[in-house]
Amino acid sequence: MRIFALAAIATAVLALVFAYAMTAWVNRVREGSDQMKDVAAYIREGAMTFLKREYRAMAAVLVALVLLTGFLVNWASAILYAGGVVLSALVGYCGMRTATKGNVRAANGALSSGLSKAFKVAFRSGSAVGLCVAGMGLLGLSAAFVAVNLATALQCVAAFGMGASTIALFGRIGGGIYTKSADVGADLVGKLEAGMPEDDFRNPAVIADHVGDNVGDVMGMGADLFESYVGTIIAAMVLAVASGSGVGFSHMAGVAFPLLLAAAGIVASMVGILFVRSREQGNPAQGLNLGIYIASVIMAVAACILSKVLLGGFRWAVAVGAGLLVGILISKITEYYTSSDYKHVQHIAEQAGTGVATAIISALGTGLLSTVWPLATIAIGGYAAFQFGDLYGIGLFGVGLLSTVAVTAAVAVYGPVADNASGIAEMSGLPEEVREVTEALDTVGNKTAAASQGFAMGAAAMTALTLFLAYVQVVGIKGLSLLNPMVVMAIFVGAMLPFLFAALTVGSVERAAKLMVEEVRRQFNLDEGILEGSSQPDYATCVDISAKGALKEMVAPGVMAIATPLVVGLVFGPEILGAMLMGVLPAGMLLAMMLTNTGSALKNAKKYIEKGHFGGKGSEAHKAAVVGDGVGDPLKDASGPALNIFIKCMAIVSLVFAPLFAAVGGLL
Amino acid sequence: MRIFALAAIATAVLALVFAYAMTAWVNRVREGSDQMKDVAAYIREGAMTFLKREYRAMAAVLVALVLLTGFLVNWASAILYAGGVVLSALVGYCGMRTATKGNVRAANGALSSGLSKAFKVAFRSGSAVGLCVAGMGLLGLSAAFVAVNLATALQCVAAFGMGASTIALFGRIGGGIYTKSADVGADLVGKLEAGMPEDDFRNPAVIADHVGDNVGDVMGMGADLFESYVGTIIAAMVLAVASGSGVGFSHMAGVAFPLLLAAAGIVASMVGILFVRSREQGNPAQGLNLGIYIASVIMAVAACILSKVLLGGFRWAVAVGAGLLVGILISKITEYYTSSDYKHVQHIAEQAGTGVATAIISALGTGLLSTVWPLATIAIGGYAAFQFGDLYGIGLFGVGLLSTVAVTAAVAVYGPVADNASGIAEMSGLPEEVREVTEALDTVGNKTAAASQGFAMGAAAMTALTLFLAYVQVVGIKGLSLLNPMVVMAIFVGAMLPFLFAALTVGSVERAAKLMVEEVRRQFNLDEGILEGSSQPDYATCVDISAKGALKEMVAPGVMAIATPLVVGLVFGPEILGAMLMGVLPAGMLLAMMLTNTGSALKNAKKYIEKGHFGGKGSEAHKAAVVGDGVGDPLKDASGPALNIFIKCMAIVSLVFAPLFAAVGGLL
Repeated sequence: MRIFALAAIATAVLALVFAYAMTAWVNRVREGSDQMKDVAAYIREGAMTFLKREYRAMAAVLVALVLLTGFLVNWASAILYAGGVVLSALVGYCGMRTATKGNVRAANGALSSGLSKAFKVAFRSGSAVGLCVAGMGLLGLSAAFVAVNLATALQCVAAFGMGASTIALFGRIGGGIYTKSADVGADLVGKLEAGMPEDDFRNPAVIADHVGDNVGDVMGMGADLFESYVGTIIAAMVLAVASGSGVGFSHMAGVAFPLLLAAAGIVASMVGILFVRSREQGNPAQGLNLGIYIASVIMAVAACILSKVLLGGFRWAVAVGAGLLVGILISKITEYYTSSDYKHVQHIAEQAGTGVATAIISALGTGLLSTVWPLATIAIGGYAAFQFGDLYGIGLFGVGLLSTVAVTAAVAVYGPVADNASGIAEMSGLPEEVREVTEALDTVGNKTAAASQGFAMGAAAMTALTLFLAYVQVVGIKGLSLLNPMVVMAIFVGAMLPFLFAALTVGSVERAAKLMVEEVRRQFNLDEGILEGSSQPDYATCVDISAKGALKEMVAPGVMAIATPLVVGLVFGPEILGAMLMGVLPAGMLLAMMLTNTGSALKNAKKYIEKGHFGGKGSEAHKAAVVGDGVGDPLKDASGPALNIFIKCMAIVSLVFAPLFAAVGGLL
Repeated sequence: MRIFALAAIATAVLALVFAYAMTAWVNRVREGSDQMKDVAAYIREGAMTFLKREYRAMAAVLVALVLLTGFLVNWASAILYAGGVVLSALVGYCGMRTATKGNVRAANGALSSGLSKAFKVAFRSGSAVGLCVAGMGLLGLSAAFVAVNLATALQCVAAFGMGASTIALFGRIGGGIYTKSADVGADLVGKLEAGMPEDDFRNPAVIADHVGDNVGDVMGMGADLFESYVGTIIAAMVLAVASGSGVGFSHMAGVAFPLLLAAAGIVASMVGILFVRSREQGNPAQGLNLGIYIASVIMAVAACILSKVLLGGFRWAVAVGAGLLVGILISKITEYYTSSDYKHVQHIAEQAGTGVATAIISALGTGLLSTVWPLATIAIGGYAAFQFGDLYGIGLFGVGLLSTVAVTAAVAVYGPVADNASGIAEMSGLPEEVREVTEALDTVGNKTAAASQGFAMGAAAMTALTLFLAYVQVVGIKGLSLLNPMVVMAIFVGAMLPFLFAALTVGSVERAAKLMVEEVRRQFNLDEGILEGSSQPDYATCVDISAKGALKEMVAPGVMAIATPLVVGLVFGPEILGAMLMGVLPAGMLLAMMLTNTGSALKNAKKYIEKGHFGGKGSEAHKAAVVGDGVGDPLKDASGPALNIFIKCMAIVSLVFAPLFAAVGGLL
């Protein structure tokens, strides 16, 4: 085992070196004019400050969980939990640093040499983050298997995932609240009331808005994918041992396989990343997709080889391949329902011509409908994976889906960097033709954003599902007794929890946004020079308000996600907890998809109209679509993504404390 | 057994006689002026025509289901199925007739003698419908136990529920689409584009809108409650036999108890109905609530007596009492989240001052949150019922919840009658002070509407849940194996189905509404005299468009609800079907609550502003709230309520065909 773990570590280190090289390359690009530097510095400072404040705010919860894990499970788990926390936090830190350095350099790349260079800077920034996600994840997991023996490592490794989960939980919730409060403040007062265009430097909330993109879409998304990545590997390992006895390979091989798949995925992703480029007149979106496709093909081949060599047959590779395929399919399906290239978003845009209400109803219908095929592909893929590889096959299905996370995360993080670049170009008053370039980059980013969200949701669902299956194995429940109505009630109550969680996050965004709205209004009233452009607005206070709001509002939903499985598992025992999870998972996944895709569809319907359809900018349809976007925004950037982590967090907390629950058997 | 069944029949007949007396009393009230008569005749004709067309459109499905039941289950079931269909259809017919006669008479009551009389007419119309619901339900069920012996009756009685379910399914879906397409057409073109007030006779869709209130809120709601009523009684009977062996009473007593509870509930409801009245200056809402409370108290006492006499102990009465209490609690909780008397709706109204987006987001948050306590009360009540009465206790919990359906349905149907009365007063140009009276009636109706919807949702959830438990008993699955990932996938896919179903209904409303919008615009363009009030619009074409749209669009979601359990049960076997239902039920229930309550909250926020808050009518807040209401309307009147039936229909189809599924064991 140790030799495999060492090989995985070597690959992880390679990924981190590669990431460092990317960052170094980005850093060597010049920042541009003093004004650009200033704007970028505001954003970077705001982002890094928030990160530090968030980590500090979480400290108490983290320490409590270390102690809880130590006393209730064992101290090796507590150490691994801390490791998961630290590495995930490091991913967040590096990611934010890279993204907030890449943004201004991408803008300057557009200024100094054009689309190709700007795209390269933005994508390399994203790639550094993507490789960091995969590298840190694999490094941490493999290190556990080098440090202690197989049996001990297996017992504790779930705690590493819980560490990743805690950071992701608060990162996604806090990030979502941050970005949306800033966004709503900037849009509602700056754009609607004062009639400013997007990214106007006179808007006091504009810096907070850009910080928010980093906080939500870089840190939040990165932590989310990091958690899914390590979570699926951990689940596959546990399932290998659970179902590995009768399937012709050793526990060791079964545990090593996911690690080596992950290592292969990193190599495949690096190759894919190198293939991503955009010609001066080309379509950058094609370049991004090409990278993902190349990585997937290489990964599929590698899975076949590893499966044959390590486990003695190809059938395990089928499960991995199913995961790869389903990952791509879910992204594509999400794109179909949320991109203006297809009929649903175009229909919403058309309905906006009739009024706000019809557009929103239409988008809600689309959001509801968009859940169907992702669910179906997961069910069909999962069934195939089970046929070929038993329960372990479902674990491998999840690993396959996430194996190329480095490149998918790279594409996801490209988006906010490009968005920031476009904003910096605007705020620094760069020439029209440069802003056209950065806007083109941003458009691609908006397009990939929905697909990336789709991927992240599918990944979260598979992570939660495989962790749940692992939990079932560890606590040794064979099934949910339907003769016990407590079980049925637990499923019902479980299904309700995502609704409660979503309600809490919606309320949080609302309250935080209100403070921001008031602050922006206050600044406009206090100093008329701001609107005239003669005096500078107080960006820092807005940044501070977003941060304070996010930190305060993330506590309740965050604690709910961690405490619920703990309390239910202890009080009602492992079977009732399992039943509750069986309610939480599907409802949470579906609600996340519905809310997120409704929001994305509304956003892209607005963009579609802005391109000149149905009357274009300033038309009645456009006004309606702007309102629709305002409804969709908190759904797609705060509540929806936070639900991803909610379901994963509940599953992993259950898995970590499973031995305790099984031993206690329920206090009631 | 036969003696108990005969007693139940006698009570049912008494209820029907009482209902007839109420109708006769209403019919003796004068209709008022010729203009009032004309308007009322338009509405009545539209409503009755739609009813006939709908029943005709369903004929093929009904015949197919009779044959399917006959060939696949047995012919006694087929006959009972037909009985359920006929009685439910009769309830719809009588309900529509009474309501469309009561509306104009309530308006004339307001004209000739004031609030007290108008209220009396509207509530007696509602009472006739409520008593019809309970009387027909109990009559049909009891007749089965008179006609054949206990064992045979038990085997077939579920088919009676399926008959009720089929009518309810198409009634709710078709009714929802009808009412919302008319409503959107009337509002969007008439009110928003042409600037007409509510219920303006120049609006071509105004008659269709009033027909829609009857189709959706009288026929739809009546069929829904009828189905829940018979469904819970059936489920309790099946569970009596399943868990009755070790509990100290005979099968016969266990089966007779729910029938006698229902009979007692009818008597209790009649007393409650007699206590409902409103003084000239009083608050009619208090009168309505008083009726429900009195009926509940009498019912609780009766349950204790029956439990002691028939089953030899009081503990079964606890389960019944829990149901009564939970029914009231869910109504109250729904009211708390959707009435302008409480903070949530007031907050939405306040948010409307900031804009449409913030109001809708706030309402969505409220809708999500409103699911929590109903779910929790059902879980706690169900747990208590189980502790006191085992599985049978849960069945009795459902029976208790629905036992006083006659009075709750009376209150629910009061709403659309009052709404129609107010519209007729407006369209007939009755004096201002009369319109104030009818508007006061309508306001009470709007208030009780949300609570009635809440009750209907809770009832539907309990019905589906108890039918599911009965299904589990009949097919004899002990639990859901979590070692079989097919089971887990089935739960996930099951949870997705309500989202698909809701998406279908949203799309249906959208398409049907579009046709109506075009028609209203066409009429305005064709003849300028309509806007000036000099020529009469073509009401009939609008009524026809609503009907056509509803009949066409109800097919796909309706067939989906019936066919899915049949296909899944046959192909994958009873365990997978059970797992699927375990996904469908909670997701469907939660989604129904969320959508319905979001819509109700938005509607009442609008009404709150119209009362003069936050700027009152014509203010920016009001405009925003009107848009919000446009979003909420299809959710609360079409998609949400249709989901109630969806979950019940899937559960009862599964129960009816359970023996077949168990025998086949899955073709795959």
